[in-house]
Amino acid sequence: MSAEPREDPGVQRALVLGDGAWGTTIALLLAWRGIDTVLWSAFPEQTDELRRTRVNERFLPGIALPDNMSFSADPHSASEGIDFMVSVVPTQFLRSVAFRFEDALPGTLPLVTATKGLEIETLRRPTEILTEALGERPMCVLSGPSHAEEVAQKLPATVVAASTDEALAQRVQTALTSDTFRVYTLDDPIGAELGGALKNVIAIAAGISDGLELGDNAKSALVTRGVVEMARVAQTRGARKETLFGLAGIGDLITTCCSRHSRNRGLGEQIGRGRSLEEILEEQQSVAEGVWTTKALFGPDAELGGVSMPIAAEVHAVLFEGKDPREAVLDLMRRAPSAEMSGLA
Amino acid sequence: MSAEPREDPGVQRALVLGDGAWGTTIALLLAWRGIDTVLWSAFPEQTDELRRTRVNERFLPGIALPDNMSFSADPHSASEGIDFMVSVVPTQFLRSVAFRFEDALPGTLPLVTATKGLEIETLRRPTEILTEALGERPMCVLSGPSHAEEVAQKLPATVVAASTDEALAQRVQTALTSDTFRVYTLDDPIGAELGGALKNVIAIAAGISDGLELGDNAKSALVTRGVVEMARVAQTRGARKETLFGLAGIGDLITTCCSRHSRNRGLGEQIGRGRSLEEILEEQQSVAEGVWTTKALFGPDAELGGVSMPIAAEVHAVLFEGKDPREAVLDLMRRAPSAEMSGLA
Repeated sequence: MSAEPREDPGVQRALVLGDGAWGTTIALLLAWRGIDTVLWSAFPEQTDELRRTRVNERFLPGIALPDNMSFSADPHSASEGIDFMVSVVPTQFLRSVAFRFEDALPGTLPLVTATKGLEIETLRRPTEILTEALGERPMCVLSGPSHAEEVAQKLPATVVAASTDEALAQRVQTALTSDTFRVYTLDDPIGAELGGALKNVIAIAAGISDGLELGDNAKSALVTRGVVEMARVAQTRGARKETLFGLAGIGDLITTCCSRHSRNRGLGEQIGRGRSLEEILEEQQSVAEGVWTTKALFGPDAELGGVSMPIAAEVHAVLFEGKDPREAVLDLMRRAPSAEMSGLA
Repeated sequence: MSAEPREDPGVQRALVLGDGAWGTTIALLLAWRGIDTVLWSAFPEQTDELRRTRVNERFLPGIALPDNMSFSADPHSASEGIDFMVSVVPTQFLRSVAFRFEDALPGTLPLVTATKGLEIETLRRPTEILTEALGERPMCVLSGPSHAEEVAQKLPATVVAASTDEALAQRVQTALTSDTFRVYTLDDPIGAELGGALKNVIAIAAGISDGLELGDNAKSALVTRGVVEMARVAQTRGARKETLFGLAGIGDLITTCCSRHSRNRGLGEQIGRGRSLEEILEEQQSVAEGVWTTKALFGPDAELGGVSMPIAAEVHAVLFEGKDPREAVLDLMRRAPSAEMSGLA
């Protein structure tokens, strides 16, 4: 596919926090748009290697990093002269990283966050963590179905830029849009963030269905009904249900549930094949995020407020209460008859 | 999964029109609930074979048909004593079949339709065809992600029973619900019918994406954005957008787009690999329904009323105007920046 010149990106110098696959890819998107882009790593040795090899061998192998991309592990020098920032720091490290940037960032700089998930201990969303660490600023949430590897190979992808600040959402849209990366604006950042977190729970359920070999109908049902649950919870937190029915909700969920690469779906599949969570945790260094999101959803601080989440509840019972996955599916099917969109405003 | 006794099905004797895979499966669901069920075939020789072998070798091989299922090719004897009817006749034959039942059906019998698609010549929905042929009656639409082969193997599936007559929707729910088949009621039959028809167009688009090897992000984007188009069109016809975001819309679409078996997705995949519609049509006896739905959507009688359907429009251009599929994808990505749910009320 040939590329046509696009309008001016509206950004001079950008900073991307986090050199994982998705952080590196967002830095690539910006650099390809002609923006001088700094990719910040938490570890100086990784910065050195990126600078030397100009490829992120560890997280995004085989993709050349262009000349207008530079690398830093120092918050202050990384932040010099930037007029655009995207945080792609894993949620569980976001608070500590953000505090390191407290004195480095320009005081009025808006923040874009592309991290999915909730902070386990606090159930906080990334924008909440950033606000607590860096003060009230205009914020924008970037989310949607976007495996980094595909985006970095210039295969088409679509995401939302969600902000209550419409001008900021449009600025993010303009900065990142290309012939292979389409950005839609949206006014519901809470919905976008909750979609990115809650979908991991449903992805575990879809994986369990795969492990039990229940077929396409069952998996589609879990995804479709799972989004209704996600929308119910999100509504109680001030989000709009439409957001969960969009790219940041069901869109992301479809990619996660159909992908061989998703860690959440994969963990569910192992559970469905009869392994226990303990067995899986023993041999893995890090845990699929949906495990903790599931736990948090039914923990003492959950504040679910009586919202019905039957699929998530069964995932919780299977993961943490030793329930047989097959019995969990049967209990889902046997629930009292109901109307399709019950519990949604 | 063990079965528990369910409440009384509320039906004494049921008739299912159409002995294809889905018709036979719906007859099985009713028979398994203890209902005496007549499966009507258009062809007496097929009825004879079903009666002799008690298996539908042609459309649902390997599944035993129970003793309380009987077979008929005669509208009058098939209709004797029935208090429940489901039509599963392919849309293009529905009108002629329905007229054969004009004098046979009890005058007050409500009609349940589980046929997907629109009548090509008229763009009529199955309930409209049935009304024209059999008069105004209470009607209910059964739709959702339900590959017949999986349902017949007692793998879990969920569908909607959609009717403006709430009591009828609940009656259908009660008659069909089992431990592996969950039915949700819904009050939007138009949305349910349009979902089942329009999804085939988006399934072709998803298949094209597969054929071009564009990856998981692109396919999820086509599905998620495709449903927004489906919802826009459906709203202009009096449906509710929520229905398209449910089992009869995105749910069905997910199953179709992820399945190796979908004819619409498969046709798209061949197109994506560089074959022309003419080549494919020359070697196939029957055509994937989405081809005609796409044509109808942009035909002189379409009455789209200015609704934006960019994905369907590109499918139309690729199928009928010789547009290069890769160029179509590029044009979709290059559209003017927009908000996510624009054009939806």
